[in-house]
Amino acid sequence: MAPPPGATPSLGPSATLADAGEFRLISELVALFDQGEHVLVGPGDDAAVLRIRGGHVVVSTDLVVEGRHFRRDWASAEDVGHRAAAQNLSDINAMGGRAHSLTVGLAAPADLPVAWALDFARGFAAECALVGASVVGGDLTRASEVVIAVTVLGSCTQAPVLRSGAAPGEVLAITGRQGWAAGGLAVLGRGFRSPRALVEAYRRPEPPYDAGRVAAEAGATSLIDISDGLLADAAHVAADSGVTLDVRTAALDVPEPLLAVGAALNSDPVHLILGGGDDHALLATFPDAGRVPPGWAVVGEVRAAEPDQVGVVTVDGRPYDGPTGWTHF
Amino acid sequence: MAPPPGATPSLGPSATLADAGEFRLISELVALFDQGEHVLVGPGDDAAVLRIRGGHVVVSTDLVVEGRHFRRDWASAEDVGHRAAAQNLSDINAMGGRAHSLTVGLAAPADLPVAWALDFARGFAAECALVGASVVGGDLTRASEVVIAVTVLGSCTQAPVLRSGAAPGEVLAITGRQGWAAGGLAVLGRGFRSPRALVEAYRRPEPPYDAGRVAAEAGATSLIDISDGLLADAAHVAADSGVTLDVRTAALDVPEPLLAVGAALNSDPVHLILGGGDDHALLATFPDAGRVPPGWAVVGEVRAAEPDQVGVVTVDGRPYDGPTGWTHF
Repeated sequence: MAPPPGATPSLGPSATLADAGEFRLISELVALFDQGEHVLVGPGDDAAVLRIRGGHVVVSTDLVVEGRHFRRDWASAEDVGHRAAAQNLSDINAMGGRAHSLTVGLAAPADLPVAWALDFARGFAAECALVGASVVGGDLTRASEVVIAVTVLGSCTQAPVLRSGAAPGEVLAITGRQGWAAGGLAVLGRGFRSPRALVEAYRRPEPPYDAGRVAAEAGATSLIDISDGLLADAAHVAADSGVTLDVRTAALDVPEPLLAVGAALNSDPVHLILGGGDDHALLATFPDAGRVPPGWAVVGEVRAAEPDQVGVVTVDGRPYDGPTGWTHF
Repeated sequence: MAPPPGATPSLGPSATLADAGEFRLISELVALFDQGEHVLVGPGDDAAVLRIRGGHVVVSTDLVVEGRHFRRDWASAEDVGHRAAAQNLSDINAMGGRAHSLTVGLAAPADLPVAWALDFARGFAAECALVGASVVGGDLTRASEVVIAVTVLGSCTQAPVLRSGAAPGEVLAITGRQGWAAGGLAVLGRGFRSPRALVEAYRRPEPPYDAGRVAAEAGATSLIDISDGLLADAAHVAADSGVTLDVRTAALDVPEPLLAVGAALNSDPVHLILGGGDDHALLATFPDAGRVPPGWAVVGEVRAAEPDQVGVVTVDGRPYDGPTGWTHF
C-alpha cells in the first residue's frame, strides 16, 4: 500500500544515508537522545543551552576514525557507539568529574547504511545513560570514510585532579579492568573470536565510572585515564609531576582470561597489563596506602627523580624492555 | 651539520605529518593557542578545566570536510582555519552569547604538509582572538581526507534568543554581509578570481560578532545564523515560531560587488542575497522597528500563519521561485 500523501515513506533495512537525506536522518538520530534536566535547549537551534552551576567545567574531545580506531567487521555499530562515548566519558572520570553533556559529529560516506548510523547512536546514547549524561548537539555530513568527533563536558564538585600532583613517597594505584581490551585486540588480529570476555572488553570497554570522583574525594594527588597503556600513561604522570614511578608486577592481578590468552599467544600476560590501553582503567597516586579507596589496587610507588630521570617509569625497579602500547600486540 | 644529540631536528618546509609525528606536531600546534584567564588548565591533561560563572552555557559543534566544505586550491590553510572557527563562533553569536572556549579535532592524511596544519591553526587562533575565545583542547589523528571537528562553548548574560520566539506583527531584520560568500563561490566555480572582495568574503567570512548580544539586549524575539541561506534559515524561524515571514526585496541593500557579479553571471544579484549562505550574517525579529539596534536593517515582517502555511517564507508577498541555497549557484 502506498503511503498516504504527505507521509514520509519508511526506509527499507538496506537504506543508505543518501536515500534518507541529511535532515531526515538527523531527526531520527535526535529522537534517540534523551535530554537531562540541565538541558534547557537540546539539538535543533544554533546551539544547545545548558544550565550549569558555577565552578569548574571540564572539557575534552576525541576523534574516532574507521580503519584506524575501529573496523566495522570487528565491532558492531552499537559497539562503536559505546566505545566512542566511553573514551570521552572516561576523560572526565580521569579529572575526578562527572560528565553531563556531549556533542557528537558523524562524517560518513553516502552509502553508509542508515541502520549503522542509528545503531551507533543507540550505543552512544546507552553509554551516556550509564553516567546520566545527555547528547545535546551534533553534526552530520558526508565524507569518504567514517569519522566520529565527540566532545564531552563535565563538572567537578572539588578541584580537578591533574597529572602533575604526584610526590615522592606516595603510592601508585589502579582501578578497572586492565589489559583486557589489548588481549581482545590481540586475538581479533589473529583471526580468533575468543576468549569471548576479552573480545567483548575490546568492543565495549567498561570504564570504572565514578571511581575518578571517589579518588578525588579520597585525596588522590594525580589521576589519569590509562588509554594509551599503563606504562605509557604512567610516564605522563611521572613527567608532569617531576618524579619517577615504579610498578611492582607482583602486585598486578592477572585474571583468568589474560592467563588464557597469554598461553595461547605464548606471551607473558603481564605485558598486556603493562602495555595495553583502551580499557579506560584509571591510574592514580595517593599520599599513602591508607587513603586508597575500595576498588583500587596499590601497584607501585612514586620516587624522587634525578634530573635526567624525570618521567621514567620502572618495572620492579628496572627499566622495562617488554612490549609497550597496543600497536605492538 | 648534524643536530646535537637529543635535540629535535628542525623540519624542512615540505615536511609532512608522517615526518613530524603526532606528539611533536601537537606540541607545535598547542603553542599557537593562547589561553584566556578563565582557562585553569589548557591542552595536555585528560581534559581542559575552565572557570565558568553559573548561568547559561551554550554549546555547538560543526564538522568541516575537505572537498565538501573547502578545497585546498580555493582557500589557503589559514583561510580554512578562519572559516572553521568563524562558523562555530557565529553559532554562539546567534544565541546572543559570547564564545569563550573551543576544541578542535584534526583528522588528516599522513602526507598533509605540517605547514598546512600550522597555518590552519594560526588562522583558527586568529579568528578566535577576534572574540577573545581560547582553544582549550583538541585531537589529532590520521584519516584519508582532512576532517575538522570544532566545538564551541559560550555564555549568555541574558536569556539565549532561540528560533522560536517570532510573533505576528514583528519586524524582520538582518545584519552583516549577505550574499558575498555565495557570490565568491559562484565566481570561483567558474574559474574566476574576481570580484576580489567576494572571493575574500567566501574564503574568510566576517560574521558580525557581538551583534547577537546587542540584539538580545535590545529585545530580539528570535535570532538565527544565516549559514544555509537567508530564505532557508528564515524558514527555520518561521517553522519553529509557528508563523510566516515576508521579505521585501526593495529593502535589501545590493552592494556594488554583488551588482558586478550579477552582471557578469547574467543573474539577479538579489538571488545571491536570498539564497546565499556562509557569510554568517544574522537574521532576527524585533517587536517593532524602534527596537532594531544600529547596524541592523529591517527587511520584512512576521505574519500570522494559516495552519498549512506555518514555516512559509514569502518574498514581496508571493512564493519565491528563484534559486535557493548555495548549491544552486
